[in-house]
Amino acid sequence: MEGQLAHIGAGLAAIGSGAAAIGVGNVAGNYLSGALRNPSAAASQTATLFIGIAFAEALGIFSFLVALLLMFAV
Amino acid sequence: MEGQLAHIGAGLAAIGSGAAAIGVGNVAGNYLSGALRNPSAAASQTATLFIGIAFAEALGIFSFLVALLLMFAV
Amino acid sequence: MEGQLAHIGAGLAAIGSGAAAIGVGNVAGNYLSGALRNPSAAASQTATLFIGIAFAEALGIFSFLVALLLMFAV
Amino acid sequence: MEGQLAHIGAGLAAIGSGAAAIGVGNVAGNYLSGALRNPSAAASQTATLFIGIAFAEALGIFSFLVALLLMFAV
Amino acid sequence: MEGQLAHIGAGLAAIGSGAAAIGVGNVAGNYLSGALRNPSAAASQTATLFIGIAFAEALGIFSFLVALLLMFAV
Repeated sequence: MEGQLAHIGAGLAAIGSGAAAIGVGNVAGNYLSGALRNPSAAASQTATLFIGIAFAEALGIFSFLVALLLMFAV
Repeated sequence: MEGQLAHIGAGLAAIGSGAAAIGVGNVAGNYLSGALRNPSAAASQTATLFIGIAFAEALGIFSFLVALLLMFAV
Repeated sequence: MEGQLAHIGAGLAAIGSGAAAIGVGNVAGNYLSGALRNPSAAASQTATLFIGIAFAEALGIFSFLVALLLMFAV
Repeated sequence: MEGQLAHIGAGLAAIGSGAAAIGVGNVAGNYLSGALRNPSAAASQTATLFIGIAFAEALGIFSFLVALLLMFAV
Repeated sequence: MEGQLAHIGAGLAAIGSGAAAIGVGNVAGNYLSGALRNPSAAASQTATLFIGIAFAEALGIFSFLVALLLMFAV
């Protein structure tokens, strides 16, 4: 049995990165659902769409960062 | 018991890749649901569809990248 | 206790392949739901249906690829 | 403690096979929901139903294949 | 510590069998929801109900099969 336990941790962190995509999908999915029901108001909420995606994406990037740190820095 | 612990980590990271597909499915599913309710507005939201898919897909690709790094680079 | 740790990783990666099916199901399910409510618009969104399925399926294939690599290439 | 580690991996892969059933259920469930609301359009979407089921089922079969490979071929 | 690792795998595979029940429940639940809204159309979709249940159930049976193989054949 070779290797470091940190490599198992990196794999676990990558699950978090994938799980964050569910949140991003929720934000973008609900925006599309609403924008197609009321297209004239869609442009006014584009900024909110990107804010929502950014906050959810950031948490996935943090998980990815933890995976990278566990692989290369620890 | 042979092999490296990093190989378990690669398998865990691949779960994250699959979980991101749920997010992608949320985005595309809600777009289809809305576009079929209001087809005349569908074309105006195609850009948003691809932006949403791209952000969710990116997190899945990051997980896949962690799996590849754990298998071949670490 | 025989065998390689990579075989546990391959099993974990296969979970990701199954999880991606949830995303594919979301896309196809929402398309069917919308197409049956508004059948005249269904043909116009067939391309989007296959785009959505392709993006979600790709992440599941990546997981399956990780499983195959862990079993036969690593 | 006897046995091979690959047997744990086969069990994990079977989870993926079961998870794919959620996706298949989403496709068939939404079809039934729509077909019962608008029975006259149901026949026109039967092809899409089987396409959606096939793509989701494929990912579950891949997981089952990984389980079989881990039990008998690796 | 006695016992075989395959018994852990069989337990994990049984999780997949249970997860498939969520998919089967989705199919039957949506059928009932639609059939009670529009009882006169229910009979026309009985075939689709059984097709949907069969595809989702098959993935659960595969998981159960993996569990049986791990207990008695491997």
